[in-house]
Amino acid sequence: MAFDPASLRYNEAGLIPAIAQDAAGTVLMMAWMTAEAVARTLETGRVTYWSRSRQAFWVKGETSGHVQRLIEMRVDCDRDCLLVLVEQEGPACHTNRRSCFYTAIRDGAEVEILSPMAD
Amino acid sequence: MAFDPASLRYNEAGLIPAIAQDAAGTVLMMAWMTAEAVARTLETGRVTYWSRSRQAFWVKGETSGHVQRLIEMRVDCDRDCLLVLVEQEGPACHTNRRSCFYTAIRDGAEVEILSPMAD
Repeated sequence: MAFDPASLRYNEAGLIPAIAQDAAGTVLMMAWMTAEAVARTLETGRVTYWSRSRQAFWVKGETSGHVQRLIEMRVDCDRDCLLVLVEQEGPACHTNRRSCFYTAIRDGAEVEILSPMAD
Repeated sequence: MAFDPASLRYNEAGLIPAIAQDAAGTVLMMAWMTAEAVARTLETGRVTYWSRSRQAFWVKGETSGHVQRLIEMRVDCDRDCLLVLVEQEGPACHTNRRSCFYTAIRDGAEVEILSPMAD
């Protein structure tokens, strides 16, 4: 069946969450896409989100160089969430860490489990 | 630093997305939590979401038996998304598949890459 980005379920703002995971299995980040961002990601092979703060397309790595190349896009059963398997150049997080999920809750406390990457 | 569920950033409906991943690295599903669901998950060790359709707490596996035991909860850099590392009993998806992300987009077409688990 041909895939149509319009067949996905977007929220009231026209957005769908997209989870980025690398080949090692690390969940790198979660951000949002519009239908057009989904289409651009598939067409260009460069993962493209919608920046809610800037209200603009966000080609991951365009300014930082920390590019995400699309390996494969997957859709969930409810068609309201995406999983993008990516090849991530350097850190995915704006804090320079590989993953945005660097804070663990252990014994009721927040613990930093990941350090920023060396430049 | 002590962790307080109220310190997370919830959307206008009071919800935060939570990504569930198993020890093998498989991303199983994404669902939503309220602050109370976050607290219950940490207290009980049973992953508890908020069902938007039923408008009720959803202790994963309570009716299906496909329980998610919490291994660790992680918070992202913006504090608006959670990653829950879980021990998943059987399938995470209501279609009886291990993961909800069983549809891949390949060459512009939807391809089913995961079959329902045997009972």
